[in-house]
Amino acid sequence: MKTQEKPWGGRFSEPTDRQVEAFTSSLHYDRRLYRCDIEGSIAHARMLARQGIVTKGEARAICAGLREILAEMEAGTFPFHPDDEDIHMAIENALTERIGGAGGKLHTGRSRNDQIALDIRLYLRDEIGRMLALVGSLKSAFLELAKKECGVVLSGYTHLQKAQPVLLAHYLLAFWEMFARDEARLRDCLKRMNVMPLGAAALAGTGLPLDRRYVARLLRFPAVTANSIDTVSDRDFAAEFIFAASLVMMHMSRFCEDLVLWSTDEFGYVEIADAFTTGSSIMPQKKNPDVPELIRGKTGRVYGHLVAMLTILKGLPMTYNRDLQEDKEPLFDTVDTVQACLKILAAMIGHLTFNRERMEAGAKGGFSTATDVAEYLVMKGVPFREAHGIVGRIVSFCIQQGKTLTGLTLMEFQTFYKGFDEELFQCLTVRQSIQARRVIGGTAEETVRRRIAEIEGR
Amino acid sequence: MKTQEKPWGGRFSEPTDRQVEAFTSSLHYDRRLYRCDIEGSIAHARMLARQGIVTKGEARAICAGLREILAEMEAGTFPFHPDDEDIHMAIENALTERIGGAGGKLHTGRSRNDQIALDIRLYLRDEIGRMLALVGSLKSAFLELAKKECGVVLSGYTHLQKAQPVLLAHYLLAFWEMFARDEARLRDCLKRMNVMPLGAAALAGTGLPLDRRYVARLLRFPAVTANSIDTVSDRDFAAEFIFAASLVMMHMSRFCEDLVLWSTDEFGYVEIADAFTTGSSIMPQKKNPDVPELIRGKTGRVYGHLVAMLTILKGLPMTYNRDLQEDKEPLFDTVDTVQACLKILAAMIGHLTFNRERMEAGAKGGFSTATDVAEYLVMKGVPFREAHGIVGRIVSFCIQQGKTLTGLTLMEFQTFYKGFDEELFQCLTVRQSIQARRVIGGTAEETVRRRIAEIEGR
Amino acid sequence: MKTQEKPWGGRFSEPTDRQVEAFTSSLHYDRRLYRCDIEGSIAHARMLARQGIVTKGEARAICAGLREILAEMEAGTFPFHPDDEDIHMAIENALTERIGGAGGKLHTGRSRNDQIALDIRLYLRDEIGRMLALVGSLKSAFLELAKKECGVVLSGYTHLQKAQPVLLAHYLLAFWEMFARDEARLRDCLKRMNVMPLGAAALAGTGLPLDRRYVARLLRFPAVTANSIDTVSDRDFAAEFIFAASLVMMHMSRFCEDLVLWSTDEFGYVEIADAFTTGSSIMPQKKNPDVPELIRGKTGRVYGHLVAMLTILKGLPMTYNRDLQEDKEPLFDTVDTVQACLKILAAMIGHLTFNRERMEAGAKGGFSTATDVAEYLVMKGVPFREAHGIVGRIVSFCIQQGKTLTGLTLMEFQTFYKGFDEELFQCLTVRQSIQARRVIGGTAEETVRRRIAEIEGR
Amino acid sequence: MKTQEKPWGGRFSEPTDRQVEAFTSSLHYDRRLYRCDIEGSIAHARMLARQGIVTKGEARAICAGLREILAEMEAGTFPFHPDDEDIHMAIENALTERIGGAGGKLHTGRSRNDQIALDIRLYLRDEIGRMLALVGSLKSAFLELAKKECGVVLSGYTHLQKAQPVLLAHYLLAFWEMFARDEARLRDCLKRMNVMPLGAAALAGTGLPLDRRYVARLLRFPAVTANSIDTVSDRDFAAEFIFAASLVMMHMSRFCEDLVLWSTDEFGYVEIADAFTTGSSIMPQKKNPDVPELIRGKTGRVYGHLVAMLTILKGLPMTYNRDLQEDKEPLFDTVDTVQACLKILAAMIGHLTFNRERMEAGAKGGFSTATDVAEYLVMKGVPFREAHGIVGRIVSFCIQQGKTLTGLTLMEFQTFYKGFDEELFQCLTVRQSIQARRVIGGTAEETVRRRIAEIEGR
Repeated sequence: MKTQEKPWGGRFSEPTDRQVEAFTSSLHYDRRLYRCDIEGSIAHARMLARQGIVTKGEARAICAGLREILAEMEAGTFPFHPDDEDIHMAIENALTERIGGAGGKLHTGRSRNDQIALDIRLYLRDEIGRMLALVGSLKSAFLELAKKECGVVLSGYTHLQKAQPVLLAHYLLAFWEMFARDEARLRDCLKRMNVMPLGAAALAGTGLPLDRRYVARLLRFPAVTANSIDTVSDRDFAAEFIFAASLVMMHMSRFCEDLVLWSTDEFGYVEIADAFTTGSSIMPQKKNPDVPELIRGKTGRVYGHLVAMLTILKGLPMTYNRDLQEDKEPLFDTVDTVQACLKILAAMIGHLTFNRERMEAGAKGGFSTATDVAEYLVMKGVPFREAHGIVGRIVSFCIQQGKTLTGLTLMEFQTFYKGFDEELFQCLTVRQSIQARRVIGGTAEETVRRRIAEIEGR
Repeated sequence: MKTQEKPWGGRFSEPTDRQVEAFTSSLHYDRRLYRCDIEGSIAHARMLARQGIVTKGEARAICAGLREILAEMEAGTFPFHPDDEDIHMAIENALTERIGGAGGKLHTGRSRNDQIALDIRLYLRDEIGRMLALVGSLKSAFLELAKKECGVVLSGYTHLQKAQPVLLAHYLLAFWEMFARDEARLRDCLKRMNVMPLGAAALAGTGLPLDRRYVARLLRFPAVTANSIDTVSDRDFAAEFIFAASLVMMHMSRFCEDLVLWSTDEFGYVEIADAFTTGSSIMPQKKNPDVPELIRGKTGRVYGHLVAMLTILKGLPMTYNRDLQEDKEPLFDTVDTVQACLKILAAMIGHLTFNRERMEAGAKGGFSTATDVAEYLVMKGVPFREAHGIVGRIVSFCIQQGKTLTGLTLMEFQTFYKGFDEELFQCLTVRQSIQARRVIGGTAEETVRRRIAEIEGR
Repeated sequence: MKTQEKPWGGRFSEPTDRQVEAFTSSLHYDRRLYRCDIEGSIAHARMLARQGIVTKGEARAICAGLREILAEMEAGTFPFHPDDEDIHMAIENALTERIGGAGGKLHTGRSRNDQIALDIRLYLRDEIGRMLALVGSLKSAFLELAKKECGVVLSGYTHLQKAQPVLLAHYLLAFWEMFARDEARLRDCLKRMNVMPLGAAALAGTGLPLDRRYVARLLRFPAVTANSIDTVSDRDFAAEFIFAASLVMMHMSRFCEDLVLWSTDEFGYVEIADAFTTGSSIMPQKKNPDVPELIRGKTGRVYGHLVAMLTILKGLPMTYNRDLQEDKEPLFDTVDTVQACLKILAAMIGHLTFNRERMEAGAKGGFSTATDVAEYLVMKGVPFREAHGIVGRIVSFCIQQGKTLTGLTLMEFQTFYKGFDEELFQCLTVRQSIQARRVIGGTAEETVRRRIAEIEGR
Repeated sequence: MKTQEKPWGGRFSEPTDRQVEAFTSSLHYDRRLYRCDIEGSIAHARMLARQGIVTKGEARAICAGLREILAEMEAGTFPFHPDDEDIHMAIENALTERIGGAGGKLHTGRSRNDQIALDIRLYLRDEIGRMLALVGSLKSAFLELAKKECGVVLSGYTHLQKAQPVLLAHYLLAFWEMFARDEARLRDCLKRMNVMPLGAAALAGTGLPLDRRYVARLLRFPAVTANSIDTVSDRDFAAEFIFAASLVMMHMSRFCEDLVLWSTDEFGYVEIADAFTTGSSIMPQKKNPDVPELIRGKTGRVYGHLVAMLTILKGLPMTYNRDLQEDKEPLFDTVDTVQACLKILAAMIGHLTFNRERMEAGAKGGFSTATDVAEYLVMKGVPFREAHGIVGRIVSFCIQQGKTLTGLTLMEFQTFYKGFDEELFQCLTVRQSIQARRVIGGTAEETVRRRIAEIEGR
């Protein structure tokens, strides 16, 4: 494109180097913003007409032209020129070609600095909406599974060592809680982002009599930004969004880690359906949990985008600097990655088959009710520290003798503490252990069912 | 410490390796949590008594013992044993030494997994409170400075090129907006964190009849956590806090970047008082803006802590794993770093002297009112794109002739566009340019003053 | 694609879910490896024939088929099937379609685990070669500019405060040194990466009598990997490459930061040609240093990729896990980004015009020869600390009086220290200051010219 | 400290704010550099005397004073003044107090900018040396264990699914390879860092006739830096070191991940001695692999330091800026963390007990010799892809029938492929599978023993 034809060509005596055009162009990725860009421009044009800055006729021509371009873009028939620097110019140039002079009036009182701020906010608003729906679906998937598997027993782990028996449902609802926090974080991010930036112009506001509140109303923003300099400099919302997305990924990565573990031959707690696994090109017997592995791996990718965004912003002089153009690719890829992971994980959850026997057998191992014995002693008046020591010695004895707690006789127990009585045997089984944990947030079945009811009652 | 004396020694036949003790010990940094730990233990003991799990007398002894330990720790006279693994054991061991058997009952129904979750939440709740106060002070400092410098003109920059004149006050208030968002983020983080974890025990809840809501009330938590597995696995709040802190640092780093620039001989916009600068060990003439440089540099440090925290959490199997112990040092250093930076920056703002003449002179350079000429043409009906082109050519002409816009005659203007008239000269000066930007969020003095009033009216 | 047709379909009873296929597919980005993949397969096939595992005729058919596919891919006419999981299968499936049964023998003794390790190493080996050439060109561009501007004086800065005069050439050669270290790092990375992985198979090596050294020879690798488990688990080279690339970006970002500063109206040291800048859509007078800003911004992107890669690898169980598939996009984008930045920066260096007068004037400001006065005193026997104090007071006096060092009389100097004599005036000018710094690595013109000669003599 | 007494106080009219002193002080952490600082100063003083810049007597007094200070610091009796800004001033001030005027001559021709560059390089040179020794010990520990466990069979995993049998020794030697690459990276880093910076002074070199090569010789540096501006700006070596350390941590984290897995009840492959584990404060039966968990967690910490360092350097204007002071804490903590982890891991390796029966039993599961059957078919002339399909169907049949490969009769095999004969049974066992993998880098025992011999022969 000849520089003179550039939107900013007047002052330049030399055309832009082709290599520079290629290097600075963002059209290949920011074209994704076309719908937001056009939506924003239509609102801007309507406001310009309302304020008498352009005529009603001009505004009508602009809006019609923009809608035509939108239709072509939706249909994939719009002829993009690689020479256009960015999506804004691609649209404005096409508009002017089609409707002539009025097209040149669209950019009145506007800079690409506030225009791109608007586009990203519109874009992210939509995408956060979409993500909230997907997180909601994932939560539902966990909830449904919890309901379905409610009676199923699982060994709870700390340090990946068997700790205490829990309900599988309780475990699954832990993820419900995490994703509920993620939802809250996304909503908070949305709230801070949902403010209308147009009118900040390049950085100082404009001398033309724009009505920013009207544009906000048209675009369904509850407020307008309060400081033009901040408006064009600000990418907090982008960083905050990628951070919220990073925690979504982190939570998924923890479930996926467990899924990979539980799919091993050694744990054997779960089987992922063939449809959700893949095989090996060399080992005919393999069935690999690729989906959870990839989700886990993709966490790194989103973390990387967060670091990219934060690095770009650190120590950047005010106000707009071209460095900010680098916000979009990490943002877009975060949106794509997290949405894809949320979708596939929610789908996969429906294709898991738990091996209830192995889970229950697992829960019995590792002296998992030792704490119950200690709590039994506490209720007998033994200080907890002492009780802990007594049970530790019992476990040690069992290991040496190759026995389990349920395999000891009362007399054997009594050699460690005289006060043991028959009641003790009420607390040695996995089911009894679980049933006892009725404290709020505990794993007793009635407590878990109450939590499910609470969630559903919302 | 002999393993048999360890809180968990019963099951072990071999003492812990000294090197392992040193490697796993956290006492040298988690002792900072002593106040929170004791506060939590007192609430726990009161609840145990209320529930009849310990006697009233035992609870009184426990609380008295803990208060004595607290007093010694506050006074710096508490004899820490390096053998204690962590602050929890340091306190519990001292308690048992002092009050005997009842001390061994304190840990009833509790695990270090939920205890540490409580301690960090209490700690962070305090520190976020402190940070909110500091961010508030920094906002006030910006506001006061904006009021004091309200009429002062500044060249606004984009791409570090002179763009349009703005008021210094408008620039300063941009930071007010940023820190206001930071406050909101910290408050949202606090809201999600301010939930009582005790009672989750190791991971499954406890079989003892604890009253978690009572503990929450004693410790002023509005709610209790809903899932014990999530409770001991969760460090979302730590990551979210460090992220919020990262944006606080980022915002400060941008102001500091500008301060460093403005302190150069070349810009000469601001002088930082001697008391807030340092010199060179070799160059006698130097006066360096060390404070803003260090704040800028420390941004990297807090970003690093965020990455550390996220890395630790990624792909971690449920539930508690010892990796989580690594949450504390990044957290503590983030608290210290951000608070120190907030304080020193707020203080330094009172020691800045702006060179108003240079700022105003700066604002006149770089054809900073060219956009005003374009907007003048728009109001005459020239499409903006065309107006932009005309003014671009005028600027180009000025550069060749070594002239400024105010140095051109009306006739010279008219060679570029016939319709120019005397009114043009109403929009060529810096003051006129600023005054015109009355749009909401714009830089006109009345608009800026209105924003100040709004802020103060809150 | 029906699972039965998958390379690993035999064991599966259910076809892969379409969504899973889309989620796990890497073809849209790993197709970039086609040349390396085919080159590796040809070498593998030749070795299989040499070892009698396939016949000579089969090998010929395989190689001919692969070359045909390569030609189509180069020409852009190859019909990619979106159903192919990855580039390996796309090629192998096409081969089998074309040459029949022999195609099914290509994968003998090979797994995709070692195949992809080979492909990335071949790819990166090429790209590091390309990058070394580009870093070399950039170094040359700095060297040429240093030669051209050799006599030009620049104010050296520390803390962005004027410190001491230096030669512009000396400043430019500092970047030569940085990029020379980058070259060395890239070469070290290449050295460690240039080892042949094929033959590790899935993880254990193969029972077939492969000749790994022959494959290495065909593909110009100086060695073969020594442990099959390490071979399929290892992505050190990817992380190391992205790290080396991060430092390349960091070095460019520092030069770009200075370019942006020097392009300001306030510094005015350099003008970037119109062809390498762009304008504003709203402000007709703007000429923005977009290229250096974008390079600076893109540094964040590459840092992000480094974090992504490191996050993926941390705590990954041995050996190959699907998470490793996520190595490629950060790697590819790093290659593209760094190469594009290196090219454009080298080109831009030829389009800089330095304003020598302003640079020299700048160097005179800020009492930049104060250290010279201190060193003069040292040569008179005054302890350096004392000398530093004396000159500090002289500078302080000058600031109060609005004078410069060259503006003081000998008598004025003598009020601060009696021993000043006429010789003092030999060290007050910028040129004298520079000329004095003849220590190795110093900024004296003869020293700088000697360094240039040394570099060229290499 | 009164500003007038500061090394740079002469020019200042106002004392430094106490808060600023506290904020900018680095003494609490850079005191760790005392030995390097003194070693560097002694060399500097000897050179000053040799060049006639100070007298021999002065140099002697300086060196004696420095040695006295060193002795006190080593003994912990040196009276540090918190008012000293940094370790350089702490030492220089003490020196001047003790030896009077000559002390003020030590800083002649030197700036803290090149002094700190020297100190860090000396410090890191030592610490890299120490780290190389520790990595060497860790490699030896893996090698010894590999020798001890040479015949032991392990299930090899990909995707954490059983893949193929391997030798435990082969697995262990994979880590030997990783740490050997780490060693090479550390050595390359050392090579680039081992260049003498003193003489660069503030940034421009000095006008005094220093002999930099002599200082380099005294301090055992093979070369001096070639550009003074680069010298004071450069922290490449710090970033490169932390990166090399990050990969060391990453490699340890992968072994630790496997150790944690293998210590589970479910895998049961390894028992970590009591001395290297800890228990639970609530669950009496627990024995937790805290050490590997902590090493894994600490990986995040070192990654964080890398990000901190890179963030600090990005876009930093030339030359020295105070931001660079923030290099030290990440650097020091990286040194401490990595060395502690290397030591404890090497020690722990001697306290592992492998459960050889479970490992061998594990290796038999999961149809781990399926690939051997496919390779058997290949040797019979069946194209690999076809062979893979046949074996896949056999495995599928076994799963349905609840059989293993060794449990099938020849006739059953023949229903899938007629050509199966008795020889097949030569390749179905774990031992046969391992023995077959004699390709270089493969897991056959003779191949592994050959590699051990190679390593020991070095």
